[in-house]
Amino acid sequence: MGATGQVGGVMRQVLAEREFPAEQLRLFASARSAGRTLPWRDEEITVEDAATADYSGLDIVLFSAGKYTSIELAPRVAEAGAVVIDNSSAFRMDPDVPLVVAEVNPHAAAVRPKGIIANPNCTTMAAVPALRPLHAEAGLVSLVVSTYQAVSGAGLAGVAELDEQVRKVAEHAAGLAFDGAAVEFPAPRSFAEPIAYNVLPLAGAIVDDGSFETEEEQKLRNESRKILEIPDLKVSGTCVRVPVFTGHSLQMNARFARPISPQRARELLADAPGVALTDVPTPLRAAGRDPVYVGRIRADETVENGLALFCSNDNLRKGAALNAVQVAELLLAERR
Amino acid sequence: MGATGQVGGVMRQVLAEREFPAEQLRLFASARSAGRTLPWRDEEITVEDAATADYSGLDIVLFSAGKYTSIELAPRVAEAGAVVIDNSSAFRMDPDVPLVVAEVNPHAAAVRPKGIIANPNCTTMAAVPALRPLHAEAGLVSLVVSTYQAVSGAGLAGVAELDEQVRKVAEHAAGLAFDGAAVEFPAPRSFAEPIAYNVLPLAGAIVDDGSFETEEEQKLRNESRKILEIPDLKVSGTCVRVPVFTGHSLQMNARFARPISPQRARELLADAPGVALTDVPTPLRAAGRDPVYVGRIRADETVENGLALFCSNDNLRKGAALNAVQVAELLLAERR
Repeated sequence: MGATGQVGGVMRQVLAEREFPAEQLRLFASARSAGRTLPWRDEEITVEDAATADYSGLDIVLFSAGKYTSIELAPRVAEAGAVVIDNSSAFRMDPDVPLVVAEVNPHAAAVRPKGIIANPNCTTMAAVPALRPLHAEAGLVSLVVSTYQAVSGAGLAGVAELDEQVRKVAEHAAGLAFDGAAVEFPAPRSFAEPIAYNVLPLAGAIVDDGSFETEEEQKLRNESRKILEIPDLKVSGTCVRVPVFTGHSLQMNARFARPISPQRARELLADAPGVALTDVPTPLRAAGRDPVYVGRIRADETVENGLALFCSNDNLRKGAALNAVQVAELLLAERR
Repeated sequence: MGATGQVGGVMRQVLAEREFPAEQLRLFASARSAGRTLPWRDEEITVEDAATADYSGLDIVLFSAGKYTSIELAPRVAEAGAVVIDNSSAFRMDPDVPLVVAEVNPHAAAVRPKGIIANPNCTTMAAVPALRPLHAEAGLVSLVVSTYQAVSGAGLAGVAELDEQVRKVAEHAAGLAFDGAAVEFPAPRSFAEPIAYNVLPLAGAIVDDGSFETEEEQKLRNESRKILEIPDLKVSGTCVRVPVFTGHSLQMNARFARPISPQRARELLADAPGVALTDVPTPLRAAGRDPVYVGRIRADETVENGLALFCSNDNLRKGAALNAVQVAELLLAERR
């Protein structure tokens, strides 16, 4: 569902790469995209109109078509007998919907009273594989997170907007390099302000609850609590968009209940599933790859038992498509 | 000193804008740049060779020519009778050299046994004008900082490197947008890895003391302690380079000894010198302007009396040239 979108394309790629044993693949999108064909193995598959499709006979349906499509169609598809793996925020905090990261809480996928399993936000996804082994060792208490989020987190439109703005700047002479403010950008659409050669500490809308936090910042808190099963985890997140195409990065300052040294953290992360330990993680290194790259591990002297670490992860791949496919693989394992 | 460099150019511009009452301006640079002329008011001034120049008769000399030039020449220039205002890291932590931010600790400039006053690092500069009024109100205890630093912090070479890499990417077709890793960048020079469409959590070298912190991260801690006069301030900083030409940004999570609400912080910052309160600070907004823009002020639930805030500041202007000129203005005031 959402087969013609950015994440939909990566899902198809990941299903092929991992040789997912699908007998048949069906592709769904809005009426506007229905009728297009997309390649799968040696065939071309025609995209079906999601509004009028017959969902019977499906085992698993991966959704990545936005919150409102999920709210409308996921229950209908689940009713028809498929397990829905939903990439949107629609059901993540529903107590009857498990929120699953394959390497972190795979057990949660087994209990799904609504026939729906949710995938976390791509920012949360970059954090939890690294936090899980540290939490198991030392008991995670609180988390300060500052993000460096790619424009592809805002879909194809976000990618196009950065690209267009960079080209606009290139039309100007040198000197502009020192004062981007002199360039007239096309009116921003996906982002509140220009993103080329800028950073924008506002991802998603400010929540109208007096906190001045954004939706993205609250998702990070609420989803981390649910996935890590730490209901009272304290989180202060600041979600910042940066002029990067692919790859979300997070600086995390974590406080633990028990002592944990940077050296011990490195040992644990070297063996953690879904994690690649590296000296200097970057989004360029993470793009197109599966693991969350983790590095710059240091003591954080501002709190007792504090650790500072930096992570980069492909927000379209593990951050969305890959995890959905991994959750589908968990469902396959149930049948064996 | 360093008149032909990036900061030297901004210094000349700021001196002109603020109508600094110089009877005479002399310009110094390395032998390589000596003999060039640069405009000042209605004249062209010939750049003198710093190694052979006669420094007698000068009242104030602004240095921005790197640490080694400062170590070699600043004592000689001070010996000749001028007050040196030094932009490099050479003397910042010297107990006999005051480290001054004009709006924060102007009193410190008066005591300068070596005839040298130091300017802080541009990252520290973006932090302290916002922290000072909050500290006065509530007592700053600790600070978690994640930075978003412009390439111009690495000089003209850093600017050229980002520009060159972006052009290289533009030579490729679409699609590249999704996987910058497919582009062959020219070998990085100023930065350890490509900076176009990337973020690099490594600014300066890793210090060989087992902390795995960079020089830049330790400067932030040590200079903040000295300027704010909080010798036991705890700081965990992560300094990250981003593909921005001008303007350093910082996400700060601060812990105070006494309660301070976001609303009270906004009131204090609205009146703070050198600070402009805004909803969403960005480097593009800060570029070419004087104040530190501060916004996204929220409670930080991870610590007692915690505040989260985001700052953006022109790293070449207030971050270097403007503060040096403001310190020179403090010296003028002494004479009145």
